[in-house]
Amino acid sequence: MSKETITNIKIEKASTSKINEVDFSNLAFGNVFTDHMFVCDYENGAWQEPQITPYQKISLDPSARVFHYGQAVFEGMKAYKDEQDDIWLFRPKENFERINKSAARLAMPEFPEDFFFEGLNTLLKLEKDWIKKGFGNSLYIRPFVIATESGVSASPANKYKFMIICSPAQSYYGGEVRVKIADHYSRAASGGFGFAKAAGNYAGQFYPTSIANKEGFQQIIWTDANTHEYLEEAGTMNIFFRIGDKLITCPISDRILDGVTRKSVIAMAKDLDIDVDIRPIKVTEVIEAANNGSLKEIFGSGTAAVINPIAGFGFKGDTWELPKIENSFASKIKQAIMDIQYNISEDKFGWRVKV
Amino acid sequence: MSKETITNIKIEKASTSKINEVDFSNLAFGNVFTDHMFVCDYENGAWQEPQITPYQKISLDPSARVFHYGQAVFEGMKAYKDEQDDIWLFRPKENFERINKSAARLAMPEFPEDFFFEGLNTLLKLEKDWIKKGFGNSLYIRPFVIATESGVSASPANKYKFMIICSPAQSYYGGEVRVKIADHYSRAASGGFGFAKAAGNYAGQFYPTSIANKEGFQQIIWTDANTHEYLEEAGTMNIFFRIGDKLITCPISDRILDGVTRKSVIAMAKDLDIDVDIRPIKVTEVIEAANNGSLKEIFGSGTAAVINPIAGFGFKGDTWELPKIENSFASKIKQAIMDIQYNISEDKFGWRVKV
Repeated sequence: MSKETITNIKIEKASTSKINEVDFSNLAFGNVFTDHMFVCDYENGAWQEPQITPYQKISLDPSARVFHYGQAVFEGMKAYKDEQDDIWLFRPKENFERINKSAARLAMPEFPEDFFFEGLNTLLKLEKDWIKKGFGNSLYIRPFVIATESGVSASPANKYKFMIICSPAQSYYGGEVRVKIADHYSRAASGGFGFAKAAGNYAGQFYPTSIANKEGFQQIIWTDANTHEYLEEAGTMNIFFRIGDKLITCPISDRILDGVTRKSVIAMAKDLDIDVDIRPIKVTEVIEAANNGSLKEIFGSGTAAVINPIAGFGFKGDTWELPKIENSFASKIKQAIMDIQYNISEDKFGWRVKV
Repeated sequence: MSKETITNIKIEKASTSKINEVDFSNLAFGNVFTDHMFVCDYENGAWQEPQITPYQKISLDPSARVFHYGQAVFEGMKAYKDEQDDIWLFRPKENFERINKSAARLAMPEFPEDFFFEGLNTLLKLEKDWIKKGFGNSLYIRPFVIATESGVSASPANKYKFMIICSPAQSYYGGEVRVKIADHYSRAASGGFGFAKAAGNYAGQFYPTSIANKEGFQQIIWTDANTHEYLEEAGTMNIFFRIGDKLITCPISDRILDGVTRKSVIAMAKDLDIDVDIRPIKVTEVIEAANNGSLKEIFGSGTAAVINPIAGFGFKGDTWELPKIENSFASKIKQAIMDIQYNISEDKFGWRVKV
């Protein structure tokens, strides 16, 4: 990062590393964590001395706000290692800015930019051996903030903990993904906080998703809570539709996450001379396009998989299968974005940032 | 409780009590906790041996689901001591059933009834000195369940912790309460989980409430997220309007908490020969009634205060003051419910349950 070091991070190194116990060729997402973590506490109206410590459990009063009122926000980002052993981040400032937008909507204090980037860079340098070379390998980074103050009064806490934990990740093929388009349950309200990466946006999706799973769908595409007529997002992914040669995605709103990968997909698609239309998209339009053969692709975008192609979808009991096509927009855009992430191609957008 | 003891609660008593350090005449809500807590862990598909231990911190992996995805539900209930030193609960089965409804909506396992009531009763008997006699004094009881499994995969956890913690409470007058009727921000989506006492329903209210606070309002009355035309609930209270001699409250829905106090207010009002109308109620109807003088009372209902009278309200920049009236519905209903809670009056509803 270009900023000067103005903080003083206290570092306590782990006495031994767990790295040799980890099978890097067989990683489940987000299950194994590296040797260290970054921690910074907020109290008395200010963020206190940031620390890097061995990865360890945290101890909280049972009445801590996060357990009762969901005052918690997070981010998801990745670090990549190129063939020269250099480590890269992808648009990290977007994540930094978004965690503070999420925090503000939940009445939580913003985290300082210098603390964020120095903490992140120092931690990544310490964990560099956990980032494996090879296209698809990465280190998943989870910054998060939780309300730690004791007491069950339903009001914003005065104490918080900002942490960064890291988990090695590999590229994997999760099988064909079919999605259910929501016709009853909803993810977010207008005027709510669906745009935020807030803890409260996730647990509510688990039960509707478990119903969809039993019906043979892996995920849900959420629709607007009012009419269920408009396609919004998939809960952990933004969603794109290719009708003919046009790529369509809905505009962001207070119900929809402003995805970093979503933005990157839009920019990259335009750069690849793909016609991108950002506008509300109706369920009926997608069904009609599926019926007349003009629906070529659906895919989700997110940090975990970059782009996740959808093989079929269901709505109100009916199902549609998508054609298998060569040279899909999904594969072209994914490749181009990953080439930037892994320092394989030139980065004319300035997205890649060296650690 | 009438159920037979079929569980075996392991009890570890605190070596010393904190009770003499507590000023029971000067209690802030939910800040001081008793000497013990009830804990039961869920793993391997089953609730494990329930325990009562000294009140203490809990230790969790930083990747525990509750910190990231808000998979957490809770209840609020109270225990009361009568003049004969007997301890009473108020409609506890309602809380038991509701925590399991909340849990089901968040894809969490249901908690067994016998564990719940034996845990609660055993804990309350152990903490009986913390429940002070005197009208208005009580022990606030907070059962809650949190997802404790490690790993940041956005899916339901396989490990949970059910706990009950208790905090002594006293009757207090929090000053006149004025409420802002929401015209932009929202609490819950249709098809969401607003009806559940889920962690994710609370933190999202803090920021809009902080704006309302600056405008001179203590709380918000939430309206429907779609049109902001219909009055719904106040976030920690259900809401009642008296127009002329009719008491009006909106029906429950998937956006609105099925409050135990709400139900009790409705039943008690009918018993007091008050005409109760359960129907959608428009903001415009309340404003019109305020303007023509027929709006006599607004009050909230909830476990904390039973009934909380509202002195005035604001909507889109305008404000209205309510008349100060004698023999209000609020005070009559509150007195009648509290007389049952404190074993002062006959309980023809069968609401009072002895510990």
